[in-house]
Amino acid sequence: MINKLVEKIQKTHAPIVVGLDPMMNYIPDHIQKKAFAEYGETLEGAAEAIWQFNKEIVDHTCDLIPAVKPQIAMYEQFGIPGLQAFKKTVDYCHQKDLVVIGDIKRGDIGSTSAAYATGHIGDVTVGGQTYTPFGEDFVTVNPYLGSDGVQPFIDVCKEQKKGLFILVKTSNPSSGEFQDKLVDGKPLYELVGEKVAQWGADCMGNQYSYIGAVVGATYPEMGKVLRKIMPKSFILVPGYGAQGGKGADLVHFFDTDGLGAIVNSSRGIIAAYKQEEYTKFGEEHFGEASRAAVEAMIADIDGALQAVK
Amino acid sequence: MINKLVEKIQKTHAPIVVGLDPMMNYIPDHIQKKAFAEYGETLEGAAEAIWQFNKEIVDHTCDLIPAVKPQIAMYEQFGIPGLQAFKKTVDYCHQKDLVVIGDIKRGDIGSTSAAYATGHIGDVTVGGQTYTPFGEDFVTVNPYLGSDGVQPFIDVCKEQKKGLFILVKTSNPSSGEFQDKLVDGKPLYELVGEKVAQWGADCMGNQYSYIGAVVGATYPEMGKVLRKIMPKSFILVPGYGAQGGKGADLVHFFDTDGLGAIVNSSRGIIAAYKQEEYTKFGEEHFGEASRAAVEAMIADIDGALQAVK
Repeated sequence: MINKLVEKIQKTHAPIVVGLDPMMNYIPDHIQKKAFAEYGETLEGAAEAIWQFNKEIVDHTCDLIPAVKPQIAMYEQFGIPGLQAFKKTVDYCHQKDLVVIGDIKRGDIGSTSAAYATGHIGDVTVGGQTYTPFGEDFVTVNPYLGSDGVQPFIDVCKEQKKGLFILVKTSNPSSGEFQDKLVDGKPLYELVGEKVAQWGADCMGNQYSYIGAVVGATYPEMGKVLRKIMPKSFILVPGYGAQGGKGADLVHFFDTDGLGAIVNSSRGIIAAYKQEEYTKFGEEHFGEASRAAVEAMIADIDGALQAVK
Repeated sequence: MINKLVEKIQKTHAPIVVGLDPMMNYIPDHIQKKAFAEYGETLEGAAEAIWQFNKEIVDHTCDLIPAVKPQIAMYEQFGIPGLQAFKKTVDYCHQKDLVVIGDIKRGDIGSTSAAYATGHIGDVTVGGQTYTPFGEDFVTVNPYLGSDGVQPFIDVCKEQKKGLFILVKTSNPSSGEFQDKLVDGKPLYELVGEKVAQWGADCMGNQYSYIGAVVGATYPEMGKVLRKIMPKSFILVPGYGAQGGKGADLVHFFDTDGLGAIVNSSRGIIAAYKQEEYTKFGEEHFGEASRAAVEAMIADIDGALQAVK
């Protein structure tokens, strides 16, 4: 799957991923009204609105981008119907040949991590039958429990040719509270980065490992260091746009050939129609606003990468 | 909710929680056959088997125990139908007046943690209506992202009088890989423990804070230290039984009045009928085997607590 991601990035010249993290207040009124008219003001109604919103954004951007990253929390907050919309979104993105990164940040002791890996990137057996419960291509994983919590995800990746992005340095303001603590003179995130490099060493695709890392766009200096610590790990970079990261800050997350990282934007793309720059499209045409925002993001990041070539 | 948990522990004299972590190979053949006859060898069939299995265990143990802890991964691996069985289990346990600890180990950046908190211990608004998506009483939270990843869970706890158990030192063999690293001469888990004590300080119930901690039974010396670092935090102690912890090892997780900790056993209770000690009950009567295992666990832990009084 890492090879497919790399090929799609090379084809689109877009090392970006659209974060499908729908909040109700991003969803235009006409979509909400239609969904509520059909299902009522229920969890099912909210799920239908989310699904229709996602579909329109995917339809307007899928030819420009290699991948999407649905954040499962935004679906899980609407209970079972929300998770049905998550699954429908994953399936639809696969139909559109997009790589799907499930942002699930799971992680537990061995047998429990194995169950999460089965559910999200593996197959489950019931009697004599086999099913694919959620079927993402990559998932994000929390490393706090150590190797035996991560290994079951790696095992399923090897079997299924799927991939991981392991949290190394997250984009939020207080990520440093534990992640930056010095251990033998080195910040904890560097130790985690070294582990990611080790875990990934025997999971190689053509150029990069199946086992990647999450490093926030909001910490470009740390990204530069981590790029060197994990030379074969693809880096998923959240925090662009709404959280503060800019294209020029991100060049050191990439290798000199412009590969090695993929930058996520969620709100900046999916709620683009609410930004001054894109209000001209109008709420009705929010999908076109998202497309314009994707084009601007590609230009920003590709421009920054070309400038340092 | 922490007050309810304490009251129920005082009433049952059982500082224990039954981990409802069903694996298909724990579920007796007669339950599986019946479920598959009705729903086929499908995800729905697996979910029905899990639900019937849980129901029988809850029916046979609910008068002896204060709380249950369903591990959501074991349900999530069966996709949407699995999560429906999770929700059904949570609701049924509430009918039986049990405190439900959702073992979800979620944790993300602020806005995303807020969505998880809404989904699991909060209410969500759709148009003019309010719904309770999963409705657990407590959830487990991963602290790796720091304060702004934990705060939204705390905010919902305050609103809803719910509670948290934050991962401090987990029970698995490689938990030390990051958690034991020395930061200024102190292991990281102690730093996390200090944060848990701080976060909990303004969330007090009568005697303990709403904000508790997870500390593995497999590390009793660390439990002793953490008990002192977090004097007002209830400690959820996984790893008893199958993972190796014993009653006598656990006394220092408790305060001198026998409160302050609650010990989880999953496999040791729910798959008791497979253990030599309980085979006399037979597979058909697996619920009675679980009841006997609960009685033995209470005697072990209560005995150990009485011995140090």
